[in-house]
Amino acid sequence: MLTLASDFGSPYPAAMKGVLLRRTDARLVDVAHDLPRQDVRAAAFWCRETLPYFPPAVHLVVVDPGVGTNRDALVVRAGDHAVVAPDNGVALPAARRIAVESGAAVECFRYEYADPASSTFHGRDVFAPAAAAVHGVGVGAIESLDATASVESLPPEGSTEAVVDCRFPEAKLGADAAHGEVLVVDDFGNVVTNVPGSFLDGRVGETLSVDGTLATVVRAFADVDADERLVTVGSHGFVECDVNRGRGDDAFGLAPGDDVRMAER
Amino acid sequence: MLTLASDFGSPYPAAMKGVLLRRTDARLVDVAHDLPRQDVRAAAFWCRETLPYFPPAVHLVVVDPGVGTNRDALVVRAGDHAVVAPDNGVALPAARRIAVESGAAVECFRYEYADPASSTFHGRDVFAPAAAAVHGVGVGAIESLDATASVESLPPEGSTEAVVDCRFPEAKLGADAAHGEVLVVDDFGNVVTNVPGSFLDGRVGETLSVDGTLATVVRAFADVDADERLVTVGSHGFVECDVNRGRGDDAFGLAPGDDVRMAER
Amino acid sequence: MLTLASDFGSPYPAAMKGVLLRRTDARLVDVAHDLPRQDVRAAAFWCRETLPYFPPAVHLVVVDPGVGTNRDALVVRAGDHAVVAPDNGVALPAARRIAVESGAAVECFRYEYADPASSTFHGRDVFAPAAAAVHGVGVGAIESLDATASVESLPPEGSTEAVVDCRFPEAKLGADAAHGEVLVVDDFGNVVTNVPGSFLDGRVGETLSVDGTLATVVRAFADVDADERLVTVGSHGFVECDVNRGRGDDAFGLAPGDDVRMAER
Repeated sequence: MLTLASDFGSPYPAAMKGVLLRRTDARLVDVAHDLPRQDVRAAAFWCRETLPYFPPAVHLVVVDPGVGTNRDALVVRAGDHAVVAPDNGVALPAARRIAVESGAAVECFRYEYADPASSTFHGRDVFAPAAAAVHGVGVGAIESLDATASVESLPPEGSTEAVVDCRFPEAKLGADAAHGEVLVVDDFGNVVTNVPGSFLDGRVGETLSVDGTLATVVRAFADVDADERLVTVGSHGFVECDVNRGRGDDAFGLAPGDDVRMAER
Repeated sequence: MLTLASDFGSPYPAAMKGVLLRRTDARLVDVAHDLPRQDVRAAAFWCRETLPYFPPAVHLVVVDPGVGTNRDALVVRAGDHAVVAPDNGVALPAARRIAVESGAAVECFRYEYADPASSTFHGRDVFAPAAAAVHGVGVGAIESLDATASVESLPPEGSTEAVVDCRFPEAKLGADAAHGEVLVVDDFGNVVTNVPGSFLDGRVGETLSVDGTLATVVRAFADVDADERLVTVGSHGFVECDVNRGRGDDAFGLAPGDDVRMAER
Repeated sequence: MLTLASDFGSPYPAAMKGVLLRRTDARLVDVAHDLPRQDVRAAAFWCRETLPYFPPAVHLVVVDPGVGTNRDALVVRAGDHAVVAPDNGVALPAARRIAVESGAAVECFRYEYADPASSTFHGRDVFAPAAAAVHGVGVGAIESLDATASVESLPPEGSTEAVVDCRFPEAKLGADAAHGEVLVVDDFGNVVTNVPGSFLDGRVGETLSVDGTLATVVRAFADVDADERLVTVGSHGFVECDVNRGRGDDAFGLAPGDDVRMAER
């Protein structure tokens, strides 16, 4: 199985699929091709939140503002999974999550590539062939590919200077308040913060101040009326600032990267 | 075969696909993930207009404004097909259409689920596992799943109080006029009404008033110039108010749910 | 293998997929369903830039402003590939590119169809069944289909009056300047011209005037700062007018079909 994620919109991913299908019979599964454009941190977040649900697979992830420069191409192995991606951090959070869940190490390999046909579309000319090659030999035999060179093997939660990493900030939790940051805003307009869902334990039904904006803590969107603000534990396990049948980003005035302070009213 | 339809946008459907692919080797086919957001009636319409074209399959449909509340999860069997969806009516029109075409009954089963990981993403945590389970035992053996309990078996065109239904209004037809309603506006801006296409029999070439706006009755879009209004029988078998290479909703001032009166000029 | 490309948005392609899957077990691969609406030239361009990357396949391409009129349906064979499309030129550039690469002829067949269920959705009612039929007999046996009639066989680069063709204009190149045209603007806002990439040979690092707007010639987007204009050889092999992490169409004031003059400053 081979999954594809990118910020390429349409129809560029089709060229990648053609390149893959000339080299492999693998099942192809689209993760998303509308990841926030050239936003490595957001892409890393969404990959972490989707790729670990898949069975063992090679994951092709191309969000690549440095395309055509001398940044490296990576193959990152985490147990039975491999992520093929530019060396800009986009692969690491997903690989770490998969590694933690399977008790595996995070192993990073550099993938050597010759001068490709284009210097603007390495998804087609570098990463798709690399992903097909990794799928061809199998995730367990990445070492056998002439094109790869091991960089470093890390424990599941480990760090390294050898490749570019991407870390999400951690929220600060007090008894009555939390200081966090907005990680992403999703398609619905839901504001996903880095405040752990546990902060809402025992608070369902209470009113919370989010940077001064009041909202009710609920379990389900429909626990408030349409167009009403709510705070809840979202599907990522973090506190979200949302609106039932509306957009939380507009109602709370929050965007990715914003600081956010939640406190009992 | 397993089809997926939702209003989840991107990249949430990828998590559902991962969950499915951990449980089944079934072919996955995306129907749409940009169904009108939390609009059960529109989603029910689009499912009715697409799912019956498929060969026997399990159809996963998640448009679910009541996620996390105590609304039930349903498995609806219609002949060789099953629709897995929240109990909000979204599955019924498609199931009824399939049942009518195959002379089968519409059989509704409740699907019991334990407290899921999230109360905001039952597509991933409830409906995808349910669809995989139904696919695993086969549509003919839904009764064998411990998690299901039969609710009621209906004749193809039948109704029930046991589950939430969704019915589209019927237009009133006179000799020279029709009173109907706008069911949906599609991506092209085509205005799909509930007036049966037969209302246009013998009227091709005539001018029709649509709420006072005049338009020509044609067989094909290109029978009028670019940017000109037209009335035609659309691919759903209903009368549509469209514009050649333009948007009918803007040109006719019509939106879903609007009353519409068509009359000879 | 069967690929699908259209301007149908969503969810109409699902009906096509259902029709196909009732008739064939072929692997289905989406190329794009958001091709520029009813824009045959743009669709022809994108098909030429994506379909040749695929292994041998039947390619279903439906961008069809003449749907329901008496325009023909075509099956175009190019080596091991076939393109099934309306006779409006959309299939020819891709077929020609594939033919050139494989040294094959471009062979055009008309596909006869009975009055279809709708006169507005031939993607579902004419072209999907045709593509399934072609896939069923195999690209090498198109002649065996009762529904097809050979029109003409062309050399790879050849022309014909027998079917509607689509040709892209050629740029005029001088020593210090190029006169070309904007072919398409992609999802990123990158302005793809018809000026061959070779025009930039030896100019990397120079400043170029594009209709009076100055920009640096670079190899990679990241060779200029964010939001800065650049001129580069894009992945199609043509000169593009782009902005690093921004939209070239806005920054250069260029749109598809515009004349463009590039000259040394």
